[in-house]
Amino acid sequence: MKLPKGFLASGVRAGIRKKRPDLGLIVAPDGANAAAVFTRNKFQAAPVTLSKAALRKSGGRVKGVVINAGCANAVTGREGMDAARRVRERAAELLRCDENEIFVASTGVIGVVLPDKKVRAALPDAVTRLSPGGIDALSHAILTTDVGPKLAQATFKFGEQRCRIVGVAKGAGMIHPNMATMLAFVMTDAALDPATLQRALKEAVDQSFNAISVDGDTSTNDTVLLLSSAPLPAARGEGGRRPGEGLADFQKALNKVCRDLAWMIVRDGEGATRVMELEVRGARSDRDARLAAHAIATSPLVKTALHGGDPNWGRILAAVGRSGARFSVRKVSLAAGNVTLVANGEPAPYREKDAARVFARERVPITLDLGGGTARAVVLSCDLGHDYVSINADYRS
Amino acid sequence: MKLPKGFLASGVRAGIRKKRPDLGLIVAPDGANAAAVFTRNKFQAAPVTLSKAALRKSGGRVKGVVINAGCANAVTGREGMDAARRVRERAAELLRCDENEIFVASTGVIGVVLPDKKVRAALPDAVTRLSPGGIDALSHAILTTDVGPKLAQATFKFGEQRCRIVGVAKGAGMIHPNMATMLAFVMTDAALDPATLQRALKEAVDQSFNAISVDGDTSTNDTVLLLSSAPLPAARGEGGRRPGEGLADFQKALNKVCRDLAWMIVRDGEGATRVMELEVRGARSDRDARLAAHAIATSPLVKTALHGGDPNWGRILAAVGRSGARFSVRKVSLAAGNVTLVANGEPAPYREKDAARVFARERVPITLDLGGGTARAVVLSCDLGHDYVSINADYRS
Repeated sequence: MKLPKGFLASGVRAGIRKKRPDLGLIVAPDGANAAAVFTRNKFQAAPVTLSKAALRKSGGRVKGVVINAGCANAVTGREGMDAARRVRERAAELLRCDENEIFVASTGVIGVVLPDKKVRAALPDAVTRLSPGGIDALSHAILTTDVGPKLAQATFKFGEQRCRIVGVAKGAGMIHPNMATMLAFVMTDAALDPATLQRALKEAVDQSFNAISVDGDTSTNDTVLLLSSAPLPAARGEGGRRPGEGLADFQKALNKVCRDLAWMIVRDGEGATRVMELEVRGARSDRDARLAAHAIATSPLVKTALHGGDPNWGRILAAVGRSGARFSVRKVSLAAGNVTLVANGEPAPYREKDAARVFARERVPITLDLGGGTARAVVLSCDLGHDYVSINADYRS
Repeated sequence: MKLPKGFLASGVRAGIRKKRPDLGLIVAPDGANAAAVFTRNKFQAAPVTLSKAALRKSGGRVKGVVINAGCANAVTGREGMDAARRVRERAAELLRCDENEIFVASTGVIGVVLPDKKVRAALPDAVTRLSPGGIDALSHAILTTDVGPKLAQATFKFGEQRCRIVGVAKGAGMIHPNMATMLAFVMTDAALDPATLQRALKEAVDQSFNAISVDGDTSTNDTVLLLSSAPLPAARGEGGRRPGEGLADFQKALNKVCRDLAWMIVRDGEGATRVMELEVRGARSDRDARLAAHAIATSPLVKTALHGGDPNWGRILAAVGRSGARFSVRKVSLAAGNVTLVANGEPAPYREKDAARVFARERVPITLDLGGGTARAVVLSCDLGHDYVSINADYRS
């Protein structure tokens, strides 16, 4: 895949991880407007604290993004902050820009200070290898327990121009409710100012990355960064695009790229073999819809039944029953695909093999209707299998 | 083990489950005063609805308790209710008592109507086999995926008498956050009225069964029943015990029996190999303490690390950070046994092998100090291993 105009990337080995590339670099040679969404976890990793402040200080301008895998540099106190600062310093030196135009992100084990010396030593190599196609190497270099790289793209009409969006992400871990670090970097060559980018990113994240991790369930390092490489029309003295023109198309393309990446993250949940596409509707309020969806999507019993391809809907209802969502038991309906499992709070007549067939798919659509209102919530969740245990019982060794 | 005076029990096969005893009967020939705590799940199983109403109608009197495994009889609508009623009817007939003096409880798969015909057919056999030592057979007959039976006892001085408490429970399933059905039946020969029993049970449950399932996280069938077989002194016209005398000793013994059973339930969590004994202290409020404790105790990442014996404390802090509990990151300390892992929000100097040694134990004591107040919460949690997945991915087949 190639990056949109105005972006270069590379992926190299810094030696933080054994035998795997672990350092990614994104550069916008002429700079980029930027917007970002960060974790809401109270324990924020050093790179999160640093990048958040940098974006503020630079007024939403980014020239380089340094991403490492193998070490989250979280809960590492002052030492961790110093290490992140030294990486940023070296990157700014190499890219000849202000330190606040360098955005840093880390993923990996918590509680270990970033071996910044290794990162700094590898940065010149990363700069040398920069190219528009380097996003492929980067997509590998930022992974941790992910099975494979995650890339998505879209094109859209922006005023008179044809523009592109390319996104790259890493996820894995069980995204509910203990999001392993999720990082996503989305780049477009459409000319947009930081405030517009921030609004658009908020909307896209709410219906993609936040619909897999559910509000508030974030790790110490989660970061989504959106970059726009094109100089703004005013700066070019061209005009070209009427105010607001093309924004809807841009939003649509951005939503699609974020949703595609989010789906890939869930599908690639540690050990996952299928994705539950859960819709809760008929809720009295958004909060009720979210409570019910969250309880189902995070239930280990539901997730293991999903792994076994077992349409054990009792577990789904039991999760809803303890979720705190307000509803009347007698109005609840539940369906898997087009098979109605429960109607008005009682088991519906269905053939077990029809339900089993839906649960055996890679995408398992589940619809819960609380029958009490118009609010809804959509959440993606993956199954919980043996590989999840294997990966996580032994992650640090 | 023998039951306290005034109680008999038996365990037999009704054929709900294949090749395993699945029907338990407890009888107090002269009746018993009773108190109970039920699930707060909105989907309440038929036996829960029925028994709750029966206790109210009988004024807290119970003569027989019928417990079946293999079928939860939950979310089964009117048919399920009728099936439970027929079981109750037959038991009342056999024990020559009012239907409201029969207490029913079920555990097993949700959404399947109780095959009450099998239960009714087996009840005479259960009555024939009643004996003070029959609690052992019962302790096996009420199990589902439990590895083994769970019995606990205590003796205490009650006025001038020496009294006993015996408890039996079934649990398994992952108790957090999707409590598989937990059933517990606790019997004493101390003379206590229903209101006193209810107060005592509430206190005991809060620090035992509710400290493993955390408020609100209950299945469709959870039930804890406390029975007292001795006629009240007034009824005997003896006096014997001054008002309130011995109550503290009774409470202590009851707490112990409930805590012992709760510990066994966690230890026997599906596939569990160790128990995390988590204490959160220094919280600003009880709610903050509970939020933090709940987030840690239910985190799949923490539970898998525990399974691997891996002192991966970053996962513990990440869970606290997203828990919603109020605290200052810089005041947080964390210890495993007597090994300090984190002090004032930063990694403490400790030897990895010392921490690993604590995590390799059967009991892993973890203390989180939020450094912001005096509230605390204690929770037991088990690890998440391969057997949990094996058991639950294939539970219904």
